[in-house]
Amino acid sequence: MENREIKYESVPEEYKSLGGRGLTSKIVSDEVPPKCHPLGPNNKLVIAPGIVTGTNAPSSGRLSAGGKSPLTGGIKEANAGTSFAQMLGRLGIKAIIVEGQSEYGYQLLSIDNDGAELNDAEQWSGRGLYEAYEDIRNEFGEDVGICGAGISAELNGMNSGLAFNDIEGRPSRYAGRGGLGAVMASRGLKFIVLNQKGAPGVKIEDKETFEEGRKKLEKALGEHDVTKPGGTLNTYGTDALINIINEAGALPQRNFSDGRDDESAKVSGEEKAKQIKKRGGKRPHMCSPGCVIKCSEVWTNPNGEGPVGVLEYESVWALGPNCGIYDLEIIGELNRACNDLGVDTIEIGNTIAVAMEGGLADFGDGERAIELIEEIREGTPLGKVLANGTEHTARTLGVSRVPTVKGQAMPAYDPRAIKGIGVTYATTPMGADHTAGYAVATEIMGVGGEADPLEKSGKAELSRNLQRSTAVIDTAGYCLFTAFAVMDIPEGLEGMVETVNGVLGTDLTTEDVPGLGKQVLETEREFNKEAGFSEADDRLPEFMREEKLPPHNEVFDVPEEDLDSVFS
Amino acid sequence: MENREIKYESVPEEYKSLGGRGLTSKIVSDEVPPKCHPLGPNNKLVIAPGIVTGTNAPSSGRLSAGGKSPLTGGIKEANAGTSFAQMLGRLGIKAIIVEGQSEYGYQLLSIDNDGAELNDAEQWSGRGLYEAYEDIRNEFGEDVGICGAGISAELNGMNSGLAFNDIEGRPSRYAGRGGLGAVMASRGLKFIVLNQKGAPGVKIEDKETFEEGRKKLEKALGEHDVTKPGGTLNTYGTDALINIINEAGALPQRNFSDGRDDESAKVSGEEKAKQIKKRGGKRPHMCSPGCVIKCSEVWTNPNGEGPVGVLEYESVWALGPNCGIYDLEIIGELNRACNDLGVDTIEIGNTIAVAMEGGLADFGDGERAIELIEEIREGTPLGKVLANGTEHTARTLGVSRVPTVKGQAMPAYDPRAIKGIGVTYATTPMGADHTAGYAVATEIMGVGGEADPLEKSGKAELSRNLQRSTAVIDTAGYCLFTAFAVMDIPEGLEGMVETVNGVLGTDLTTEDVPGLGKQVLETEREFNKEAGFSEADDRLPEFMREEKLPPHNEVFDVPEEDLDSVFS
Repeated sequence: MENREIKYESVPEEYKSLGGRGLTSKIVSDEVPPKCHPLGPNNKLVIAPGIVTGTNAPSSGRLSAGGKSPLTGGIKEANAGTSFAQMLGRLGIKAIIVEGQSEYGYQLLSIDNDGAELNDAEQWSGRGLYEAYEDIRNEFGEDVGICGAGISAELNGMNSGLAFNDIEGRPSRYAGRGGLGAVMASRGLKFIVLNQKGAPGVKIEDKETFEEGRKKLEKALGEHDVTKPGGTLNTYGTDALINIINEAGALPQRNFSDGRDDESAKVSGEEKAKQIKKRGGKRPHMCSPGCVIKCSEVWTNPNGEGPVGVLEYESVWALGPNCGIYDLEIIGELNRACNDLGVDTIEIGNTIAVAMEGGLADFGDGERAIELIEEIREGTPLGKVLANGTEHTARTLGVSRVPTVKGQAMPAYDPRAIKGIGVTYATTPMGADHTAGYAVATEIMGVGGEADPLEKSGKAELSRNLQRSTAVIDTAGYCLFTAFAVMDIPEGLEGMVETVNGVLGTDLTTEDVPGLGKQVLETEREFNKEAGFSEADDRLPEFMREEKLPPHNEVFDVPEEDLDSVFS
Repeated sequence: MENREIKYESVPEEYKSLGGRGLTSKIVSDEVPPKCHPLGPNNKLVIAPGIVTGTNAPSSGRLSAGGKSPLTGGIKEANAGTSFAQMLGRLGIKAIIVEGQSEYGYQLLSIDNDGAELNDAEQWSGRGLYEAYEDIRNEFGEDVGICGAGISAELNGMNSGLAFNDIEGRPSRYAGRGGLGAVMASRGLKFIVLNQKGAPGVKIEDKETFEEGRKKLEKALGEHDVTKPGGTLNTYGTDALINIINEAGALPQRNFSDGRDDESAKVSGEEKAKQIKKRGGKRPHMCSPGCVIKCSEVWTNPNGEGPVGVLEYESVWALGPNCGIYDLEIIGELNRACNDLGVDTIEIGNTIAVAMEGGLADFGDGERAIELIEEIREGTPLGKVLANGTEHTARTLGVSRVPTVKGQAMPAYDPRAIKGIGVTYATTPMGADHTAGYAVATEIMGVGGEADPLEKSGKAELSRNLQRSTAVIDTAGYCLFTAFAVMDIPEGLEGMVETVNGVLGTDLTTEDVPGLGKQVLETEREFNKEAGFSEADDRLPEFMREEKLPPHNEVFDVPEEDLDSVFS
């Protein structure tokens, strides 16, 4: 970026069979000094579509973004489902690497089949992303893919995500976690715009194998209760989990001080689907073309106007029950503000809850929550505090009940009541992250076997296995939700591996999956170790080992040896 | 604290030959879980006088305060020279351990020869310490010793120190570093008040040996150029270093962006001594009775009123040249505000400099610097940011040139131009701390040998040796400045060891010193390792390896292997 130079490089041999997370983590590990300042000149931002992304494999419109995280201080992979991912794949781009720091103000990188260029983007500095994305579509065409860094990223906010376009071009598909927005903005890059016109498409080495695999996977997705048309995700979206996890006593209320509240039903997927039907908006909806699950939606205001995009379970929970807020209108407004400012909903929801505990607002005060988020837009000192995430805000306010691991705020499952996900929070190289090894699937939904969520034993193994297969799914470019089907239906997993073989011309089997995942995780763990992480970083916060969570009145009691056994 | 209980415990055998830092670090290591939240229920504050403190050994009125540091996340020993230390020793108290968290609001612990009690101290909450200390002396007697936590500590500010009384009872003697004020305040303790009336005094096992040693040490201190009457410290105080370090090109200017500025002379010890002579105040002055060095002073406003206490070199630099401020009146005002709010001058000076780099003020704008510090008194969001130190403020503002190690801001020597002190900053368990192994003595003043400050080789050994002997001096209870004399005059060191033997009835020799120091350091390093520290934490900030410091245009280039060799 420092000289606004663009270089196309051919793909080194050792990167050829990688994509998505496997590729971003490898490049970051090869090129970014682990001890560098994440906002200084030596960090890089890497964006890579999955191996099959851009093909017609089902639910494969995913990309990985990687870099050294300003939030965790470790390696980061953040993942999004967006047509931007597919366009990258079809343009034949294995990865974009953004490096150096611009001395020319904010830039916009536009890429099409003929080449790429950098142009001034200062006009969008300080402006909301909804408006900016409209502008950009007016200027570059309705069908472009957009990746953007918002106002929070411009403040170097550690809660800033990368906003990608949804199907209608709104900034509502996020690679949200870990502050990668700030990594992009601190390079001086504000937007990436893709135009896939004339793109050659993904090269498929063995079309027959690919096609065979694609069909098997599509069949499995179409049969499984969670992923099939008319199934849970299709009908209610991810927010179907509100009632399920509340019932399990693991839906964190008011900064992780309770695991259940009857009011939660007011913000459930069932209630939300009913509202969308009544007011307009859209449900079901795809995050990217070719998805067969269609868990997405378009939420609007009560008049069916002001489309926000999807209100995911994690967002509804973070901005809702975790702040004592049980009102979908307010949650929708908060989520819109997050999208507009380029903010990770999980991080800011936790931040507001900690701010409430620290006395800046009462739990349940939605109006005040909106004001707090808007402080980020104003760039006030308080806004800059909040933009830097939960742990930073807790430090500022002197709050010691802080639900973070490696500096990253926890998702919507209290690990005291679902202990396997706690092992994932503690040990994944990413910081508290449910998507890194979603033990909830087994512990609550009985997918891939069964496990008592309150039982502490066996959870290290469960998390380890899930973390490995997840790393492969993130590398292939499949949506994590395909895992529900492939964990229960062996042909689905076979099909998934065959699509990868088809694209790469390899002959992997399902038995290779754990080993491949292990490799990705080892690369990431090694980076973190060099950056200064030790086993002390693979722990949940102290208060969760000491404070009992109602209604089960459990603490997190998975032994430390078990945590350390996940990667040993 | 949770039940306002006070217990006297007899001293366990293994603690009997310890004092000061050796004792606080041992107790913290034995009783505080390394992974606990520093502001949560499991941290403890330990205060211990040195072994000889309270006797008439010269310049021995020192104490150590220990705990898990909220600033560094590691073990902390902060050291102060104050009659409070001597009173503790004379009352026969080896250590005060403050544990648990009060549910009764702020408390005042008063101790005299008949016992101790806890009483309500809420009346002083939110009030400045100068006024509070006057109040307390009015209530408890002019001669009491006082330890207090100020407004910053009440905010859980990580820049909060422990304020101890000077000879006239002002809150100007600080165990400043690492946020121990917040550790005390978060226990619910606001003040400790000591009355030594009727105290038995320090028990001396072998009076003859003690007396022999005392005389040798006193003679050495009286002969060495740095410590003798009419010598450097006596005449100009620690601020004599301004001209010396500026000349060496190592006096950090404007957030470590230059090592020299001609304007620095305006805030030199020479200039300050002249001013004090002119306006009143006092120079020389003792930090505690029985000091033969007398480096302290009383700085006042231009009319000789509003006594602040001493303006130390580190404070003058931090609040002065490092912020581009070259005006003793403003520095005096800033230092008074720090003492009043209970703030570490080194930390807040660096914080203001980083805030200036982050755009909150211009370098050199003293009025704005005062306003910024006063934000802490107001408890505004910005005040809470600044109260949490340099690294926290840098994160808030997105500044990536951050002069910290282990989260603690650097003292007044740029490690690019004095490389041995850089090794100490990097490797001491305390975070950037010059007192932990003052290589400047050898590199700049030729004390204890000579070493070129710009040379990188040999510095690991220099720092290692100094860190070991310093740990012993901090354990014995001697002022660090005695080291100038004992490093150059062998009889001085002998005398020092003999005073310790006299008090304890032991038969240590000068050859035992490095081994004893090593033990203290190992205890501290082990705590930090358990808390999650690794070799990545033993590094200087990235920008100091990349950005050349004028006028020598040097980077910090001591090899990482050398840093790792200090403790291997």
